Amino acid sequence: MKPLILISNDDGVEARGLRVLADVAHEFADVVVMAPERNASAKSLSLTTTRPLRVRDVHQEEGLSIHCCDGTPVDCVKLAVEYFCPRQPDLLLSGINHGSNSSINVIYSGTMGAAIEATALGLSAIGFSILSHKPDVDFEPAVPYVRHIIGQALDHGLPPQTALNVNIPHLPADRLRGIRLCHQARATWRNSFERRVDPQGRPYWWLTGRFECDDTSDGNDERTLGQGYVSVVPVRSDYTCYSVIPQLQYLSLDSPNSL
Amino acid sequence: MKPLILISNDDGVEARGLRVLADVAHEFADVVVMAPERNASAKSLSLTTTRPLRVRDVHQEEGLSIHCCDGTPVDCVKLAVEYFCPRQPDLLLSGINHGSNSSINVIYSGTMGAAIEATALGLSAIGFSILSHKPDVDFEPAVPYVRHIIGQALDHGLPPQTALNVNIPHLPADRLRGIRLCHQARATWRNSFERRVDPQGRPYWWLTGRFECDDTSDGNDERTLGQGYVSVVPVRSDYTCYSVIPQLQYLSLDSPNSL
Repeated sequence: MKPLILISNDDGVEARGLRVLADVAHEFADVVVMAPERNASAKSLSLTTTRPLRVRDVHQEEGLSIHCCDGTPVDCVKLAVEYFCPRQPDLLLSGINHGSNSSINVIYSGTMGAAIEATALGLSAIGFSILSHKPDVDFEPAVPYVRHIIGQALDHGLPPQTALNVNIPHLPADRLRGIRLCHQARATWRNSFERRVDPQGRPYWWLTGRFECDDTSDGNDERTLGQGYVSVVPVRSDYTCYSVIPQLQYLSLDSPNSL
Repeated sequence: MKPLILISNDDGVEARGLRVLADVAHEFADVVVMAPERNASAKSLSLTTTRPLRVRDVHQEEGLSIHCCDGTPVDCVKLAVEYFCPRQPDLLLSGINHGSNSSINVIYSGTMGAAIEATALGLSAIGFSILSHKPDVDFEPAVPYVRHIIGQALDHGLPPQTALNVNIPHLPADRLRGIRLCHQARATWRNSFERRVDPQGRPYWWLTGRFECDDTSDGNDERTLGQGYVSVVPVRSDYTCYSVIPQLQYLSLDSPNSL
């Protein structure tokens, strides 16, 4: 039996990146797509708790079915695994996102939210992003990398419950230099909100901001992308920062009577 | 000058847990509260990108100001740090959440979303949750633990850019046994959606699900909470899973011509 790949994204079911990813995945596997009906960027791992979801069937052919729902990327993954996949998927793919999810962007990303959710369900997962927000971005140079990474992941398997955050520079094919395993660069968004005043004189705040990265460590994803490599950062749904537990033992308390 | 503590949550500005936390924090510091206007549970680290935010001032007294906005917990933190804090906060507190954020719940939680966002802004942060969803839950037994942890964090400082995920059993004071440093238990939500049919015969799906944890490892937060201890799990906004990078080197590629 062919492998089964489930695909979602956060740019919505109409995004070109989703169709490009589905086409590449279909070379390897039967494919089920469940994507948000509309753009759900920056939804992180949010869930829809206050209303039910509706599903719409968008496309059906041999080995490829495309659905959308009015939920978040995480809703899409949960719903598809339970109701729309004919068997347990071998892999969840998310993307190809129009815009970077490198560095700190991973924590807000709906694309990576879908991938992290998949690992919480026990699946392997890969989120793909290209470093251009243009709806009509040229995916052609990225496709051989996407194909290579999917093929390798299916052949070798990923470590249990691991998601890969794959970012691809927006460059012509002859300037893409290869693939590097990376860690997440330390960076932040400065001046995240802009204050404006409405015609009635009342203030309101628009999300905006400037990405700032001063991380010069070897092998961080921002730096690696800047050198023309595709970056691959492994992430998981276990958020524990094990390395600082020893330093925090001063917080532990055995005699509550002392409180 | 007194320390400054910024407070947010995901249950909304009217939640009792928020007021309890603000009162305890006010014993140590000047306090600014910026909370979602309404319940924003399960919003994870989502951002509001498609509309501007409005802010409402709820309460003002010496050293304590309470505001709310129509955004997510992460929006609240960003907005408050930039526009509503008179100086850089020494600590971000989030909660006290009505309901557990232990184990896998951390990835969906708006309470912990606010705390993780704070670490991305370079702050130390603590998210507090009590293991009861009741709006009128008795916080009295929890308060000495909340006070102890805030005091220790202000005295000792937390490791850089670290958030603590603190969960408190819903037990009488004489059955709370102390505080333990923990790691996140491996668990999942099963049967996350329930399919129903509307009066017109069309299907819809409601979020539901059953929490399942089969993790028997020593020091996981679920087990520790079950033993009557307050659990403390450190988390960060660096999601990199460093331990699997060596195993994934088969994905690296130096000669793109081979693709």
